[in-house]
Amino acid sequence: MKKISHPKHFLTLDALPYRSKVFLCIALISSLLSFSQAVKVEPPFWWAGMNAGELQLMVYGKNISQYEPQINGVNISDVTKTENPNYLFITVQTTGITPGKVKIDFKKKGKIRFSEAYEFKKRADNSAQRKGFDSSDMIYLLMPDRFANGNESNDSHPDVTEKVDRSFDGGRHGGDIEGIIDHLDYLKELGVTTIWSTPLLEDNDERYSYHTYAQSDVYKIDPRYGTNEDYKRLANEMHKRDMKLVMDYVTNHWGSEHWMIKDLPTYEWIHQFSGYANSNYRMTTQYDPNTSEIDKKYCVDGWFVKTMPDLNQSHPLVLNYLIQNAIWWIEYANLDGFRVDTYSYNDKEGIAKWTKAIMEEYPHFNIVGEVWLHDQAQISYWQKDSPIGALQNYNTHLPAVMDFTLHDAIGTVFNEDNTGWSDGMYKVYENFVNDFLYRDINNLLVFIENHDTARFNHIYNGSIDKYKMAVALIATVRGTPQIYYGSEIGMQGDKGKGDGDIRQDFPGGWASDKNNAFTKEGRNQLQNQYYEFTSKIFNWRKNKKVIHTGKTTQFLPENNVYVYFRYNDNESVMVIINNNPEEQSLNTERFKERILNFTKGTDIITGEEISLKTAIKVAGKSALILELQ
Amino acid sequence: MKKISHPKHFLTLDALPYRSKVFLCIALISSLLSFSQAVKVEPPFWWAGMNAGELQLMVYGKNISQYEPQINGVNISDVTKTENPNYLFITVQTTGITPGKVKIDFKKKGKIRFSEAYEFKKRADNSAQRKGFDSSDMIYLLMPDRFANGNESNDSHPDVTEKVDRSFDGGRHGGDIEGIIDHLDYLKELGVTTIWSTPLLEDNDERYSYHTYAQSDVYKIDPRYGTNEDYKRLANEMHKRDMKLVMDYVTNHWGSEHWMIKDLPTYEWIHQFSGYANSNYRMTTQYDPNTSEIDKKYCVDGWFVKTMPDLNQSHPLVLNYLIQNAIWWIEYANLDGFRVDTYSYNDKEGIAKWTKAIMEEYPHFNIVGEVWLHDQAQISYWQKDSPIGALQNYNTHLPAVMDFTLHDAIGTVFNEDNTGWSDGMYKVYENFVNDFLYRDINNLLVFIENHDTARFNHIYNGSIDKYKMAVALIATVRGTPQIYYGSEIGMQGDKGKGDGDIRQDFPGGWASDKNNAFTKEGRNQLQNQYYEFTSKIFNWRKNKKVIHTGKTTQFLPENNVYVYFRYNDNESVMVIINNNPEEQSLNTERFKERILNFTKGTDIITGEEISLKTAIKVAGKSALILELQ
Repeated sequence: MKKISHPKHFLTLDALPYRSKVFLCIALISSLLSFSQAVKVEPPFWWAGMNAGELQLMVYGKNISQYEPQINGVNISDVTKTENPNYLFITVQTTGITPGKVKIDFKKKGKIRFSEAYEFKKRADNSAQRKGFDSSDMIYLLMPDRFANGNESNDSHPDVTEKVDRSFDGGRHGGDIEGIIDHLDYLKELGVTTIWSTPLLEDNDERYSYHTYAQSDVYKIDPRYGTNEDYKRLANEMHKRDMKLVMDYVTNHWGSEHWMIKDLPTYEWIHQFSGYANSNYRMTTQYDPNTSEIDKKYCVDGWFVKTMPDLNQSHPLVLNYLIQNAIWWIEYANLDGFRVDTYSYNDKEGIAKWTKAIMEEYPHFNIVGEVWLHDQAQISYWQKDSPIGALQNYNTHLPAVMDFTLHDAIGTVFNEDNTGWSDGMYKVYENFVNDFLYRDINNLLVFIENHDTARFNHIYNGSIDKYKMAVALIATVRGTPQIYYGSEIGMQGDKGKGDGDIRQDFPGGWASDKNNAFTKEGRNQLQNQYYEFTSKIFNWRKNKKVIHTGKTTQFLPENNVYVYFRYNDNESVMVIINNNPEEQSLNTERFKERILNFTKGTDIITGEEISLKTAIKVAGKSALILELQ
Repeated sequence: MKKISHPKHFLTLDALPYRSKVFLCIALISSLLSFSQAVKVEPPFWWAGMNAGELQLMVYGKNISQYEPQINGVNISDVTKTENPNYLFITVQTTGITPGKVKIDFKKKGKIRFSEAYEFKKRADNSAQRKGFDSSDMIYLLMPDRFANGNESNDSHPDVTEKVDRSFDGGRHGGDIEGIIDHLDYLKELGVTTIWSTPLLEDNDERYSYHTYAQSDVYKIDPRYGTNEDYKRLANEMHKRDMKLVMDYVTNHWGSEHWMIKDLPTYEWIHQFSGYANSNYRMTTQYDPNTSEIDKKYCVDGWFVKTMPDLNQSHPLVLNYLIQNAIWWIEYANLDGFRVDTYSYNDKEGIAKWTKAIMEEYPHFNIVGEVWLHDQAQISYWQKDSPIGALQNYNTHLPAVMDFTLHDAIGTVFNEDNTGWSDGMYKVYENFVNDFLYRDINNLLVFIENHDTARFNHIYNGSIDKYKMAVALIATVRGTPQIYYGSEIGMQGDKGKGDGDIRQDFPGGWASDKNNAFTKEGRNQLQNQYYEFTSKIFNWRKNKKVIHTGKTTQFLPENNVYVYFRYNDNESVMVIINNNPEEQSLNTERFKERILNFTKGTDIITGEEISLKTAIKVAGKSALILELQ
C-alpha cells in the first residue's frame, strides 16, 4: 500500500468536516449506512481472460480511503490512496479469473462496513485477435451531431446542460447514433468500409459541446447521442454489413466539467500552473535537441484550450485509468480501431505506454494518431518502430500515422501549374520520395481534409474536376483513404468563418430538411455526380489488393501530369493525373519499365478500354485510372 | 592484364592506320623513335609513403596499348587496356617505395622501345595528418575571375580560346590567383580564415569559361588564373597567415573541350545516350523507393548542361582517375579541404568510394558536398554515417554537407512577420528542430547565399539591418559560416538577370577601377558599415569555442524575436534576433534555464554591458549577441 505524496496545495478538494464527537452516534449511523454508501467503481465491469494480468479499480466515494478493501477469492496486490480521501485505487490480479460476480468488501477497524458487487464478464470469441482497419479500408469521418438526427427525443437531455439549437452553428444540432445507424446502407453503397465518428462520450460543456472533445464522463455515451447500448448496436450493425467502427479517443485532456476534474484524485492528475498556461502547440519541442525546457513543458503540459484540463499521462494512476478505459470500450463495444486525438501533445513516454498496452491486449488492432506535422521525418517519428524515433530511442508503438504532408500538398496543388521546382504535381510527387523514412508505409491515413481543416470543395470553389482528381489520388496511393462526410455530395464550408462552417449538417439528416441527399432522388444532378464518382472509385478499390498493399513506381511529372503505377505479382494499375487544364497526350514509351507486356488498360470509371500501344490522351484537369491487361 | 570489353560503337576514336608492310623499315624507325615517343603520364608524378598502396598510371600516346610496360624495382600488378589503343592503365604497387625517379620501359616483342621517367616525390611532413577546415573557420567564397586581377599579362593566353572581355558579364574579366594573393591581408582583417575559390583548373570552353566548371585539363591551373606553382604559392601564403584553402572539385563532369573527352579512353568513360540527355536534376530519385528507373537514370547519367559530358564514376578507371587527381592536388598544393560540386548528381556508389578513398588518405581532412535539397532528412542523407542514409545501407563518407534549408529560410524570413505557423523567425527556428537527423551537426556549411543563388543584398534591397541580422545568425549557429565575396561591402546583383549579375567584379580588383573597396578609404560610408560589422563579428568568432562546438538551446520566437544560447562548460552566449520592426523588450525570466547565475552580457559589437536582471531592449530589425558573465 503506497500513498502518493503531494508536494503542493491541493486545488479543488474541499475540506471535509471532521467528526470528532458523539462516537456512538456516528458509529451507529455508519453501520446503518454500510450497504447504502454511494460508491462508484471504474471500470464499471471487466472481463475474464484478458491478457493484462492486473486491473486497477478506481473507487470513488466520500472518505472512501478510510476503508480497507478485500475481495473473496481475488488477490489485491496494491491499494493506492492519494491526498483526496474520496478515492481508492485497488489493484487486483486477474490472471485465471473466471466470468462471474465478486463482492468487494470495504472494511474499517476489521469489520465489513459495506460491499459492492463487481462483475467479470465473458469475453466475446476471438476478441483479442480482432483485426483492426487497414489499407484495404476506406474511412468515412463524420461528426455525429451534424450527420443525421435519428432520434429527436434525445436532442436535449435533462442530464446535460447544452440544449439543442440548430440555428447556432456552434450549437447542438441533434445528430445521434441512431442517425448513423439509419444511414449505414447509404455509406455501404458509397464504398465506405469504416466509420471514424468524432467523439460520442459525454461532454457536458455549456457551449460547443457538439464537438465532444471536452468529455465529462469517459464511461458513458453522451445522452444526446444515445446510450452505451446504442453505441454497441452501431458497431454490431456495422459488423453485420462487414464494416468497421473506429472510436475517436482523447487521451490528452478531459472537459472541465468532468466529474473527476471537479474533485481531482490528486493535484497531479492534470498539468497545473500558477495561473493558466495554454499549449504553445509546438510539437517539434518533443524531439528538437535544441529545445528549451520551458517550451517543451508548455507544449506538452499546457492546455489545449481553457476548457480542457490537460491530463498528466506520466502519472501511473492517470495512465492506468486511460489504458483501462480504452480497453473497456474496445471490449464493450467491439471496436475495430482508434483514432487518437492530439496524439503528439501527450506526455511522450506516457502515450507510448498507453499505446503499447492496448496493442499488447489486441495485437492486430489498429490505432491512428493525429500527428499534425509538416515534414515526413517528423510524422514518421510517431509511428511504431520508426527509424526516426529510434534516433532518440523512442518508440510509440502506434501502428498508424496521418499523412499530413500529402494533405498540405492537396490543399494547393490543383490550382497550380508546375513551372517551378516544387509546384503543381511535383508537390504531390515529392511527398512520396521520402516514403523510406516510414516504417510501415501502408499504415498511413491519406486524406484531402478533415473536421479541423478547410473543406476541399471550398478551397477549390466547388470544382468537381478537382475533387475527382483528389479522390482518385487518395484512392490509389499507398495508405488508407479517409473521406470527410458531405464531400461526397460536394458539401462546402469555409474554415475562415469558423469551425461551424466546415461542420454543417448533412442535408437530409433531419426530418425537416428540404432535400435528402442520402437518396439519389434527393440529390441534385451535381450532387449525384459527386456521389457516383466517389462510390464508383471506392467500391472498385474494395477488393484491389494491388492498391491495398502493392508497390508503387512514380514518374516525374511532366507538363503537370503525374503518372504512377501500383503493382504486385498479379495486377498492375496505372494512374494518370492530368493537372494541366489542357488535354495531354502521353507517349507510353517512357513508362515501359512498368507497362511491360500489357497492351491495354480498362478505365475503372467508364469501363472503356484504352490501348497502351499508342499515346494515351487524358482530358485537362482529370484523372485516369487504368487496370492493365 | 584485363581488357575492358566494349559493347557498343566507339564514338570518337579515329581508326589508326595499320602498318603491315616494310617490316624492317618500321622496326628501324621504331627503334630510332624509342626515346622520342610522345606520351603523357597521369598523375604526372606521385609521392612515396602514401597510404593507398596502389597507383594507377594512365599513359596516353598513339597506339600505346601495343606496348608492354615494365618498371625496374616496381611491381606492376595490372595493365588494363580499353578499346582505344591510345591508352594504357598501369597499376603499380607503391607500398615501401622510396622518393626518387624510376624508369617506365615500354616493350614490344620483348624489346624496350622507349622509356619514360616517373618521379615519386617526398611528402611534406605530416601531410597525411593535415587538419581540414572545420566549424572554427569562416569561409569566404570567391570567383577568381571576378575577384581581383593581380596579373594583367595573363588575362588572355594563347593556349586557351576565350579572351578577356570585361564588357561582357558572361566573359573572362581577368581576375586571377595573383589577385587573391594580393588581398589576403584584406581577407584576414575581415575575419576570413578559409577561402573557397570556385574552380581554377583549365576550362577551354569558347564562352562562359569564367565559371570554370567545364574543365579541359584537371592537372593544370587555367593559364588565365596563373600556374600550378601560383596555386601552390596561394596555399603557402595563406598558411603563413594561418588561413586555409579549399578547392572546388568537380567529379560529376568535365568540359567538352577536355582532351580525354576528345579521345575517350572508353565509350563508358562518360554517360552516353542515343541523342543528348540532360539531367532532370531530381536528386530525390537517388533514394526515392518509388522512383522509376528511367527518372533515376536521367538524374544521375543525364548531363548537367550540354557542354559538360557526364563522367561515369561507376567505371573503375574513371573513379581511380578522379580519386588520384583529387589526392594529387591535396598533396601538391597542400590543400585544407574540398568543396565538391553537384555532389548528389554523381553515381551514388562511385562518389562514396571517391570520398572514402580521400578520407582514408587524409583522415582529418574535410570535404563539403553541394547537396542542394530542401529537406533536412534529404540533406542529412549525404553526410558521413548518416542515420538517414543508413536506412538504405548507404554511406557517403562525406564529412560535411550544406545547410540549404537554412539558406531557404534566410531568403525570405527578414521580410516576414510571424503571425502564421511557419512565418518569420519561426521559419529559422524550425530549421534547427530537425538537427537530430544529422550525424555531425557541427560539420554543416551555413550561408546566406552563394555563387548560384540570388544575392542577399539584392533580395533585401540593400538593407544593412537585414544583412546584419543574417550575418549574426550564420556567425553564431552551429556549423561553419560561409560568406560570398562582395556581400561584406553590400554588393548586390540580380539572379533574375542571369548569373553574370550575381558574379560582378569586386570593386578595386582592377587597376582601372574608380574605387578600391579593398581599402577603408576606397569604400564609401555604407560599404564601411557593412565591412566593419562583418569584420567585427567574424574576428570575434575566431576564438569562440562556445560557437564552434558549443551546445544550442533555442526558444520559440515570440513577436518575431528569436532567442538562442550557445554554451559549453566555460562560456555562454545569448543571441537575440529581433525581426520585428519595432523595438522589443524581453523579460529575461523566460530564459532563466540558460541565464542561470549570469547577471550581465557584453554586446560583442559595441562592447556595451547589458544587465540580465531587467528586461532587455532590442531595437527593431536588429541582432544582439551577448557574452554572458
